[in-house]
Amino acid sequence: MTDQTVRQHLDEIFQAGLARVNPLTMITSRVHLDGDTLRITLEDRQLEVDLSQYNRIWLLGAGKASGRMALAFETILGERIEKGFVCVKYGHTEKLKRCTLVEAGHPVPDENGVAAARQILEMAGEADERTLVINCISGGGSALLPCPAELCGPDCEINLTLADKQAVTNALLSSGVSIAEINCVRKHLSGIKGGRLLQAMYPARSLNFILSDVIGDDLGSIASGMTSCDTTTYTDALAICTRHNICDRIPASVMRCLEKGAEGSFKETVKPGAPELEPAENILIGTNRQAVLECVAKAKELGYNAQPLTAQLSGEARNAAHTLADIAKDVAGNDMFLPKPACIIVGGETVVTLQGKGKGGRNQEMALAFLENMRSWNGAGERIHFLAASTDGNDGPTDAAGAFADAAIFKDAPDMAAKIDDYLAANDSYHFHCKAGSIYKTGPTNTNVCDIQIILVR
Amino acid sequence: MTDQTVRQHLDEIFQAGLARVNPLTMITSRVHLDGDTLRITLEDRQLEVDLSQYNRIWLLGAGKASGRMALAFETILGERIEKGFVCVKYGHTEKLKRCTLVEAGHPVPDENGVAAARQILEMAGEADERTLVINCISGGGSALLPCPAELCGPDCEINLTLADKQAVTNALLSSGVSIAEINCVRKHLSGIKGGRLLQAMYPARSLNFILSDVIGDDLGSIASGMTSCDTTTYTDALAICTRHNICDRIPASVMRCLEKGAEGSFKETVKPGAPELEPAENILIGTNRQAVLECVAKAKELGYNAQPLTAQLSGEARNAAHTLADIAKDVAGNDMFLPKPACIIVGGETVVTLQGKGKGGRNQEMALAFLENMRSWNGAGERIHFLAASTDGNDGPTDAAGAFADAAIFKDAPDMAAKIDDYLAANDSYHFHCKAGSIYKTGPTNTNVCDIQIILVR
Repeated sequence: MTDQTVRQHLDEIFQAGLARVNPLTMITSRVHLDGDTLRITLEDRQLEVDLSQYNRIWLLGAGKASGRMALAFETILGERIEKGFVCVKYGHTEKLKRCTLVEAGHPVPDENGVAAARQILEMAGEADERTLVINCISGGGSALLPCPAELCGPDCEINLTLADKQAVTNALLSSGVSIAEINCVRKHLSGIKGGRLLQAMYPARSLNFILSDVIGDDLGSIASGMTSCDTTTYTDALAICTRHNICDRIPASVMRCLEKGAEGSFKETVKPGAPELEPAENILIGTNRQAVLECVAKAKELGYNAQPLTAQLSGEARNAAHTLADIAKDVAGNDMFLPKPACIIVGGETVVTLQGKGKGGRNQEMALAFLENMRSWNGAGERIHFLAASTDGNDGPTDAAGAFADAAIFKDAPDMAAKIDDYLAANDSYHFHCKAGSIYKTGPTNTNVCDIQIILVR
Repeated sequence: MTDQTVRQHLDEIFQAGLARVNPLTMITSRVHLDGDTLRITLEDRQLEVDLSQYNRIWLLGAGKASGRMALAFETILGERIEKGFVCVKYGHTEKLKRCTLVEAGHPVPDENGVAAARQILEMAGEADERTLVINCISGGGSALLPCPAELCGPDCEINLTLADKQAVTNALLSSGVSIAEINCVRKHLSGIKGGRLLQAMYPARSLNFILSDVIGDDLGSIASGMTSCDTTTYTDALAICTRHNICDRIPASVMRCLEKGAEGSFKETVKPGAPELEPAENILIGTNRQAVLECVAKAKELGYNAQPLTAQLSGEARNAAHTLADIAKDVAGNDMFLPKPACIIVGGETVVTLQGKGKGGRNQEMALAFLENMRSWNGAGERIHFLAASTDGNDGPTDAAGAFADAAIFKDAPDMAAKIDDYLAANDSYHFHCKAGSIYKTGPTNTNVCDIQIILVR
């Protein structure tokens, strides 16, 4: 088997995982219209919604996968959808007939996102008890709907600007802060997150379809829980900024907002038991775990002894790479964990604490760190092929989904292989992989369930 | 099942692994005396040695397990052993009849070790072609036989002292340097390592029984390869000190020795193809992998779905803990990798890069870091029980083998649990676990095949 064939296998396995969490098939296979009844089949329950009870059906959505989620509902409900409004990341578009789709900035919010948030809150405010709102929520929604102004209201002397929110997001993203922590801070600077979308829609009935890009699939964390209750507080948000020493890199207005919130000056996010939760139905429709298990099935089909290790990989990307490499190495040398040909599948989402000024993403960095570990293995490394990639097709602020690590790089790009340490130190994994021929691109996938790592051992 | 029962299971599983690599049973089950023929049965070959060819049989040894290895040969060969000399770490003693056993300092060498090294080199020098030398070599031998003076000889203006070697060892141990790198430096400051024991014994025939405490079981690395060839050079040793920025923490005499060696002023260690290798037979008798696989067997016997992940775990202890915790968490929550009750076994040897001034060892630190990860898991953590322990019974400079991590600590020692971060920051895992009731002690085990980590998920 050539190195190229194995890379093709890695791609096929990853694509199988992607296909499993394609929102279009995922939703159309589970949601069916039968006369006036909408039947929703879930793993643990069956839901039926009598559409005749409502005067209108509206669709709202935000997130990288929300365009395709909306497409699924247009396919199912057609003209029953009166109107809709969906905000996706640039490039993650779909052609919709009943809904307006706009693009906005991610991971750093922009003015398009601010306008989209206003539009969504306006529609939500118009919804009444005879309105059924279908919300299509996926990862990315958090950054795509920045809504700073609504928070403080016209009477408040603190006026958060988009620039303030961008500064906060940048500070958080570059400090190794977990996605849960990022979302806690964002929720308390937002007029739409932390259940505030429910506050705006109340008392309308809502079906909230949620695609998880959060480890553990906590509904309150995905897209900052626009339709969920929130147990975190202004005080927690403040503590996160303090703990990660980023208070001095955050605009003073943001710090004042969090401080005043912690003092009780602002309305909190939706807390458990709140009336706004009554008419809302949150439905988890897709997860990283599903994609990981599908990758395992595909790898078996290709003849590999395949095992999933976890769908909750977290921590620093380069540290996770080290332990995964330790496991792979002993499979290669000793069939320790699995007999060869073997395939190990991991899912989750790591972080990168930036030290350098390079360009990259957590998956590209993990592949580079994995390669760094392979360097000294001699024979064992020849057998091992690694792919780390983001299911949304967007690894960090790059146009790549991830990258490969394999012995082909040492053979074909020895000059680059000699500089692994330098590129790692600069967090410049994108340029390394582009030059070494190990970059992996899928384009926007219009789904989003965190990351997948695949190790093949021949 | 109570928390206490599960800790007992962890202990039973670990003890089963230890028993598998007990040098006494390991050697007596594989080495048999049949008339004048010594038959040695190995996994991949059968050796026969005609003892009538030799006028005398001597035994030499150094390492934490070497006392018990010598005991095995006294059991097999009895009075055929004319004499012997074995150096072990304080406390790792055995009652020997034919051999002298001395104790010396480890991991920091002391004067007893210097004397032992002289004694061993003297005996080696007396051995001739009619002498069969049985060498019992195990991990720790490297530090136990410091032999600085012999290196430079009486004519050399560089006179390395024991204090110099202690300073080097301290600098290396506290800098996250790998054991392979530590041994490269040590070999080039020693008159006994890097095959130099073979140089001293030449042309005597030697059977060198080696118990591996090195990941990957490279014979040249175990106890700094006293009977193996060495591909590293003075130049490599110098580069290691430079790379880890410890040149200024190393005595000037040591730096001069490495520099003069790199210039070609001293005889190099034994290189591949050297005549000294001819009469030497190196026999790998025990490994971490054997212990790991025995732990798996024991866990299955206790009713767990057990799998080994790797026998080559390396890297920073706390980073490895993080990824292992990510795996355990998804077993607890979702039966992701294994169905519950599950047992994951890992072997290898991590390192700790000291940041604080506390007391601890890599296993105790790994358990503490694992606990730190468990803190936020709520329900999932209740199911998970972790033990990290060193097979020699000595984790770092402590009297503990390792430590547990489980939810019992949060319940029974909440005050300690609140201070996990502080103890981790101080590298003070020993005091944490002593106070939290999670310390694990075995006493000296008289074997030594790196570390084992066991995760049980109920």
